[in-house]
Formats: sequence, structure tokens, C-alpha cells
Amino acid sequence: MRDVSIIGIGQTPVGEHWERSLRHLAYDAVAAAMSDAGIEHADAMYVGNMMSGEISGQSHLGALIADFAGLRGIEAVKVEAACASGAAAVRAGYTAVASGLRDIVICVGVEKMTDDVSSKLTSSLAQAADTDYEGAHGISFVALNALLMCRYMYEYDVSHEDFAGFSINAHANAVGNPNAMFRRPITLEAFKRAGMVADPINLLDSSPMADGAAALVLCPWDRAREFSDKAVRIAGSAMATDCLSIHDRHDPLWLQASEDSAGHAYLQAGVGPADIDLFELHDAFTVMAALSLEGAGFAERGEGWQLAANGDIRPDGHIPVCTMGGLKARGHPVGATGTYQIVEAVQQLRGAAGECQIPNARLAMTQNIGGSGATIVTHILTNDE
Amino acid sequence: MRDVSIIGIGQTPVGEHWERSLRHLAYDAVAAAMSDAGIEHADAMYVGNMMSGEISGQSHLGALIADFAGLRGIEAVKVEAACASGAAAVRAGYTAVASGLRDIVICVGVEKMTDDVSSKLTSSLAQAADTDYEGAHGISFVALNALLMCRYMYEYDVSHEDFAGFSINAHANAVGNPNAMFRRPITLEAFKRAGMVADPINLLDSSPMADGAAALVLCPWDRAREFSDKAVRIAGSAMATDCLSIHDRHDPLWLQASEDSAGHAYLQAGVGPADIDLFELHDAFTVMAALSLEGAGFAERGEGWQLAANGDIRPDGHIPVCTMGGLKARGHPVGATGTYQIVEAVQQLRGAAGECQIPNARLAMTQNIGGSGATIVTHILTNDE
Repeated sequence: MRDVSIIGIGQTPVGEHWERSLRHLAYDAVAAAMSDAGIEHADAMYVGNMMSGEISGQSHLGALIADFAGLRGIEAVKVEAACASGAAAVRAGYTAVASGLRDIVICVGVEKMTDDVSSKLTSSLAQAADTDYEGAHGISFVALNALLMCRYMYEYDVSHEDFAGFSINAHANAVGNPNAMFRRPITLEAFKRAGMVADPINLLDSSPMADGAAALVLCPWDRAREFSDKAVRIAGSAMATDCLSIHDRHDPLWLQASEDSAGHAYLQAGVGPADIDLFELHDAFTVMAALSLEGAGFAERGEGWQLAANGDIRPDGHIPVCTMGGLKARGHPVGATGTYQIVEAVQQLRGAAGECQIPNARLAMTQNIGGSGATIVTHILTNDE
Repeated sequence: MRDVSIIGIGQTPVGEHWERSLRHLAYDAVAAAMSDAGIEHADAMYVGNMMSGEISGQSHLGALIADFAGLRGIEAVKVEAACASGAAAVRAGYTAVASGLRDIVICVGVEKMTDDVSSKLTSSLAQAADTDYEGAHGISFVALNALLMCRYMYEYDVSHEDFAGFSINAHANAVGNPNAMFRRPITLEAFKRAGMVADPINLLDSSPMADGAAALVLCPWDRAREFSDKAVRIAGSAMATDCLSIHDRHDPLWLQASEDSAGHAYLQAGVGPADIDLFELHDAFTVMAALSLEGAGFAERGEGWQLAANGDIRPDGHIPVCTMGGLKARGHPVGATGTYQIVEAVQQLRGAAGECQIPNARLAMTQNIGGSGATIVTHILTNDE
């Protein structure tokens, strides 16, 4: 297998894009990434998306977006793993380049959630869970996460307020990210007072639905210099799954797929948690941030929340997370989130993260979670040669 | 890149499976394929499916089906390319094994179309076309194909009856396939008298909606003998795309992606159309069978229908097609069709096709078409070592 580099990145601002359709958003990100890489053609495209069928009435995104991006005829396909679709598309692209099958590959995550004319968004998001055994009871996706958060608070004797640091950090970081949806800080008081969504998850525990697209251009590591002097190498790439239903897990408070995918990525990269300079984790809800930190080895079981409470996740902490705002404040266009995380990690490793820059970042990790942890994709990126 | 072999196959009968859900169908096919390969574990799973979100309210099939098949934890993801999703999943599995990333991979196509409680099937199928520019006019997928068939009949001065051979051959072949949906022959008279669906496409030009799942186990060619003495090698694998909208094509009667993907597959396999012993083509509608034969080089432009009219596509003809019934008579569970085609090609190359057996089959080709030709995936299989 060949080493793989990222030689181009592109993204749209995350937000409500009433004037841009699904294909336009994808085009904007792809065109920016191709321009960044200085390429005019590509060999293949992998599109990460969850709900285009339900919300936009459009399947068959591979051919659609490849054509609309001016790449008619190339191999192109959609990859779906619920909220982990974006990173799953990057992993598909990584595999194609690593195999020797393809040289120049574009991975684009795109989601258009505001065109929800049939009010199907809540039911569509619940499709990330087990429809027959969870959804059948009428439970929404946020309610499933609320059950997890309840259990976390009970088992580990922590309060709702103990999660505040995740959201406060995310919002503080988003201020410096021109592509973030919510570029304003929040206070502890605001976090405590926010309206309830599904007890104990309130509005400021929750990432917002949004439109957006983010894209990457991959090529073999030994060709990266042809295109870019700021290429970033994919040192580790791994995907693992778990059962879809939370009630089927041995321990609902342990993300086995986080441990497994992070473990494989660490092994491939030859590093461990202590070596990681920043971690773009999947803070769809604050409890998921805590569980992700634990699963990936940054905290002991039941102690992930402490990294937020004591400031360790802030830009000057031991393990900065959500450095560009995370899902909470950059926004969570579901199938695009995984590509946003990787694009932002590349920005950090290039030293091009502006006000969000983590000084001397050399190793960045991303973890994209599908459903309540049933698919987890971990990538480790480095600017070391 | 490593050579890749198919060491196990499994399939459910195609039909209306009121007693089996999406996950059960997938399980049945996967369990059969694993048993056939003599394996109890796999490294990764690629699920081909188009419309589980719309029809079954279930996204996130990778984790769901891997877990339900007893493979909790492995890498698993859904691949979607409309009606070409099945072969696209096989191509994803092929890439993973060829790369050296994975050794034992399961590819499963599954579609559950009968649980259409919201009557969304027709609109869901239309999502294979361009929703904004084709679907917006209210055109259904069969109507799009009817426009193509009209144009074909006009340009090449052929009659509706000239297409009859495709359906008659498919139904005749399905009689010998215990997994086919319609195991009964049809006559020319029946073809001519069949009820109109979208002029000029009538019921016997059209493949039926159905439930079904088909699965394959892949491994590196140099390990195939560990598992099976009837392994089949993937000699060529290629995917190409075209624009989604027919009106955007330079020539609506030419499947450029058929020519491109077949061309790449021929090149990789080092063979040409004259070497192919049987061709499992995508006869969703009779006109698509004619266009596929032309695009893949078995007939000149405008002459694909002649192969049906003169019997060349029959089991004893120059290029047998739809040897197990094709989409027309085996049935067309959309996202599973591509895997059924490849499973059937393996049956032929193993000499295990029963009454459908093509004598001395050495090279089999499959072509799976998404939309009206916007994604086309071609595989060439061989039992030569």
C-alpha cells in the first residue's frame, strides 16, 4: 500500500444556504479544493452524504456531483455511514489511492438540511439509529443521546453543568473561524439557562443542523510535491462499527468503535494519545464529546468530562479539541461533518488556521461518529514528511 | 495491486418477501456466502443499496447488516450509485482487497421494495435521475426510459416488436433458475399484447420491482485456494459515470459510461468482446439491453436489438445474455441487482448454473447500470487461473 497525502482542501461556510442547492454547495467545496491543489482533473470522486434522498429527493450523488464539478465520466460514488459519511468517503478515497488504483482523488462531504419542505429532518436523522428497534418507539436521535447523557450523569455522578466546558470551548474557538455557523462565545450562565431539547440535553449541548460542504484532494505521498508544498500525510485511517441499537451494547457508556478505530489508527501511525496535538472530535452532543475522549484514550472511563471542566481541551490545554468550533459551533451538516473535521485538521497542520491556530501542531486526529457510535472513523494526519 | 478472487456466493430468491425484512434478507445472503466460502469471519463489509432510507426508514446499513450477520465491529459501509449500487459495492470490496488493506471482504447488495407503506417507490426510483431538472417535471423513471426507447425506434427505424427477443430470452432462461421471480416463458404474442406502462414501454419490456439480496466473499487471489477449489478471479473491474440528465448528453442513444467502463475492464483483463462467453447486462427495460450491448462493443450503434431479433443472445447464441433470467425475469431488487449479476456469473464459471449453464464458460462479463446510464460498473470474471 502507498502512503497518501492531502494536497487540497475546500469548504463552504456552514449555515443556512437558502440560495445554494445540494449540488451547488458540493461544487463550491470541490472547486475550492481543486484550485487549492492546482489540479484541473481527478481520477475519482467519493461523496459523503446521509440524507439527500429524504430531504432533497436526490439519490445518485456520485455521478451528479462529479458532472456538476466538471469531471463528467470519472468514477464517482456515494458513501453513507449516517453521520460518519464524510470521513467514510475520505476513507474510500484513501483506499483507492493507497491501493494504486487511483492517483488523484476528490473526497467531498455535503449535506443540505434546510430544504426540508416535508419536515422529514427529525425522522431522517433517526434513521442513523435502529429504525425497527429504536425508531419504532418514536424516539428521536437527540432523545437517544439524552438517555446516554442521563446514564453518564448517574453512573459517574456528574452534573449537567460539568459538560459546559465542551460547548464554551467550541463557541470560543468558532469566533476565529470564518466558516463557522455560530461565531459568538457563550457563558456558563447561558449554558445553564438554555432551553431544554430532550432532558438533560439542552440547546447548548446540541450541535445545529446546517448546510455545508467540505472537500479534499488526495494523491500518493510520493507525488504530493508535484502539487503542493503544504501537503499533509494521512498517517492513520481506520473505521470500526458497533451494533446500531444502544440497548444491544455490553456497555452503553463505552464507544467500542471509538476505541477500535482509534487503536488501529494509532497503530498504523505509530503514535499514541500523548502524541496528538489536537483532536477534532464529534461533539454532536456534549456527552458524545466526553465518550469520544474516553474511547480514544485521552481520558479514563467516566472522566472525559473532566478535560472540559479543567480546561484541558482548550487551545492552550493538553489536548485541544474542536479547534475551529467543532460540530457545536462550526455547525453539523451531517454527511459533511467528517470532511470538515479533516479539512480543519489540515488547516492546523499547514499553520493556516488563523486565529484558531494551535502553535506547532504536528499531529492532528479526527474522529467522526455515525449514529450513537455504531460507525466511527478515525484519521491521524501529520505534517512530518 | 493484488489480484482478487471470489470465493463465496449467496443469494435469496428474488420476489415479494413479506415475511423477511431488509436486514433478514441481507443476513440470508451473507450467511449463505460465508458458508459457501467456509469462513466464519470477515475483515470488512460493503453494502450496496439504493432506497433503504426512503422505503424502510433506515440509513446506516453498513453497521446494521454487519452486526446482524454476526460481524459486529468490522469496517462496514453502504455504497450507493442508484441502480448500480450492487456492483459499486463489489468494486469497493475489490479495491479494499486489491490494495492490501483487507483480506476477507463481504459485498452484499440488498433491496426491500415491497414494504412501501407510504407509496414512495415511484418517486424514490426517480431519484436515480436528476431530480431538479428531470424529476421536477414529474417524469417517472420508466417514462425517461420510454423517451429513450421512442428515440431509438425513430433513429434506427425499428419497431417495438423488434425488442421482444430480449424479454423472451430472459423469461426462457429464468425457468431454470430457482431464485428467479418469474419462472415462466413468454410468447411473442404476449409481449405484443402486454399492458402499456409508458408508451412504448409495456409491462413485458419492464423488469419487476422486487425484494432480494445477493452476497459475495472476496479474498486475494493468492489465498483463494485456502478457502475454495472453485474460486473465480476478477479479471477486470471498472466504473465510469456520465451526466445524470439525458438531455445533457451529446447523444442520448449512446451509453458513454458503458463504453468507458467496459473499455477499462477489457483493457485490464486483456480481452475483448469476442472473448466473452456470457454477458449479464442490465435489462431494466428492453431498450437498456440494446444500448448496453452497443456500448460494450457487442453490436454496432443502432444494432443492439438485432442480437435479440436473430437469437444471438440466447444460450446457444454468440453472446448469451441474462442467462439466469436477467433483471426482466430474475427480478430487479434495485440495489441488489449488481450483486445478483456477479453471483450468477460466478455460478456459470463454476459450472454450477444448473439448467441455465452455458457450456464451457470461461469469461463472464457483468454490467450494472445506475439511472439512465449515469453510473455504469463493468466486471469481467474468469475461471482461468
